[in-house]
Amino acid sequence: MKSTNNEQKGIVATGFTGECPLPFDDYPQVLMAHGGGGKLTNQLIKKLFLPAFDNPVLNQQHDGALLEINGVRLAFTTDSYVVRPIFFPGGDIGQLAVYGTVNDLAMCGARPLYLSAAVILEEGFLMEDLRRIVQSMQNAAAKAGVQLVTGDTKVVDKGKGDGLYINTAGIGVIEHALTITPASVRPGDAILVNGDIGRHGIAIMAVREGLSFESLIESDSAPLAGLVQTLLDNHITVHCLRDLTRGGLASALVEIAGAAGLDMQIEETAIHVREDVRGACEILGFDPLYVANEGRMVVFIPEEQKNKALSLMRAHPLGVQANIIGHVSSPGKGIVRLRSRIGATRIVDMLSGEQLPRIC
Amino acid sequence: MKSTNNEQKGIVATGFTGECPLPFDDYPQVLMAHGGGGKLTNQLIKKLFLPAFDNPVLNQQHDGALLEINGVRLAFTTDSYVVRPIFFPGGDIGQLAVYGTVNDLAMCGARPLYLSAAVILEEGFLMEDLRRIVQSMQNAAAKAGVQLVTGDTKVVDKGKGDGLYINTAGIGVIEHALTITPASVRPGDAILVNGDIGRHGIAIMAVREGLSFESLIESDSAPLAGLVQTLLDNHITVHCLRDLTRGGLASALVEIAGAAGLDMQIEETAIHVREDVRGACEILGFDPLYVANEGRMVVFIPEEQKNKALSLMRAHPLGVQANIIGHVSSPGKGIVRLRSRIGATRIVDMLSGEQLPRIC
Repeated sequence: MKSTNNEQKGIVATGFTGECPLPFDDYPQVLMAHGGGGKLTNQLIKKLFLPAFDNPVLNQQHDGALLEINGVRLAFTTDSYVVRPIFFPGGDIGQLAVYGTVNDLAMCGARPLYLSAAVILEEGFLMEDLRRIVQSMQNAAAKAGVQLVTGDTKVVDKGKGDGLYINTAGIGVIEHALTITPASVRPGDAILVNGDIGRHGIAIMAVREGLSFESLIESDSAPLAGLVQTLLDNHITVHCLRDLTRGGLASALVEIAGAAGLDMQIEETAIHVREDVRGACEILGFDPLYVANEGRMVVFIPEEQKNKALSLMRAHPLGVQANIIGHVSSPGKGIVRLRSRIGATRIVDMLSGEQLPRIC
Repeated sequence: MKSTNNEQKGIVATGFTGECPLPFDDYPQVLMAHGGGGKLTNQLIKKLFLPAFDNPVLNQQHDGALLEINGVRLAFTTDSYVVRPIFFPGGDIGQLAVYGTVNDLAMCGARPLYLSAAVILEEGFLMEDLRRIVQSMQNAAAKAGVQLVTGDTKVVDKGKGDGLYINTAGIGVIEHALTITPASVRPGDAILVNGDIGRHGIAIMAVREGLSFESLIESDSAPLAGLVQTLLDNHITVHCLRDLTRGGLASALVEIAGAAGLDMQIEETAIHVREDVRGACEILGFDPLYVANEGRMVVFIPEEQKNKALSLMRAHPLGVQANIIGHVSSPGKGIVRLRSRIGATRIVDMLSGEQLPRIC
């Protein structure tokens, strides 16, 4: 099932979902799909932002920037959160804004320390809801072991926002000698994922589409820094990490494969998808590989450490269902191949359009 | 002239502009004035954000957070930019987003190093305008000597944004032994400002209200880190710095006086306001003391260093019109007194409502 089905099912209101987006210069205006985490987002970054801001740190194309200031190695990252609805099963925009940035720091191999929080409020937003979200941010910060140390508040006119948008930026410290980036991935590396995929995206879409299932599907939103720390503390030579947010597992793998110039092979049977999530995906016309997660990551490690890493992950509350889903095959053009349940192999491409708008 | 005149003149569309806002709990919804930089913004921060995120770093109530990571002293800050129009005489939202965050770092006495940039685009925004703004950010970063090292792009539906909003966060390094915060201000300190006030706010309002003057009033938007560095390099014992953005000179002084628990006295005749800016303020019913600037700061230093500091500032391109505008008088309730041109003394209060919505 490919993401192009979305269009047929009428779920996607706007944006291009075909197989082959136009060259970047042919889009005179911003489309929803430019923010969807797929090909158009990728084009926007590569054709517009990267050339303008060209510098070695930015060009790492990682979840965060790796910096060194007077001998201290730091990671620095930012994300804006525009998810709707702002309250959803398993979380809310405030929790997401904290965990999301904590996870981006963790994906750099950093220990998250400090966060900023900047809110853009729409005139008329309920103070009660703001209070609830701020409390949720504080709870999430406490759970993730970070401090919210600086912030900003702006208010925009009614009709120029959507309740509230939150930006968080984060600083973490890197206390090991590894360089955890796509460029560190090696042929033969094992690829692990820490659990089932697709829950966050489906939890959000179920609310939006007014679907109800026998069981409540809750977002998997969670802080991953502790799980990463467990691997590092136990001397796992982590090559690369990536959380599976916008664009899901497929986009993360294709991005890393492209940045590293390596081909990869993954096994569909090794990728956990909960039955209710799979059912919802079928109803909504989504491929779980492309659905956003907020507590899942992909881990690249040397083949010989895969069993030790798997045991460590499964012993952690956020890795109980961890699995080895494939391996890095060889230098190539960054092609990711998936062997399906029935044994056929297909190429996993980046999402052409926009599957789930405003999912984070 | 008090800011309450705005209401009479019909400039302010929404928000409370009276002398005495209600207790915080009496506002069930967010008003434009909660983002105006005056009393309601202050209440929102003190009653909602600070109690939730309570920690020693945040409680410094400074333009940024002062951190120490493995022996390296850093400043960390964030701001979202929602100014409209996005292009205005003397600058644009992109330039503002870079200089604004650079300045917040400089106000902590830090040398700005790295910035993040996160844009929230409204569906349909012109790619051409985005390109222009991104280029402007890069030019501003080069001029300010910082690198844009990490970023994020989100797209929201048409009618849920206003073209684009930009968030920047910044990291700077502190390479001296001073602690530049409101708590370091001392009785007797001289108060300096680096030039004329009110230009940014008036440049924006003139466009919005369709006013034209004989001379073009351009924003004073500029990066202040170099000017701060000049003071530090020449061993000026800087006690506190604050840029005069939302709420203008008056709000900056009242905030610092309150945080330091000290009274202050300033002289109206020592505060430069360009004639055309003064005229525009009269037409619009604004008090220049409350009008936003984007390249102006207030500097608190020991009395005995004031002449040296003034000479240093005047020798810098961004301090040609620097002046000593007053002094810190004595411990007190944080009252700021202004001696007017005619010799009368009045108390300078924080803006009760919202003077200039979406000025930055």
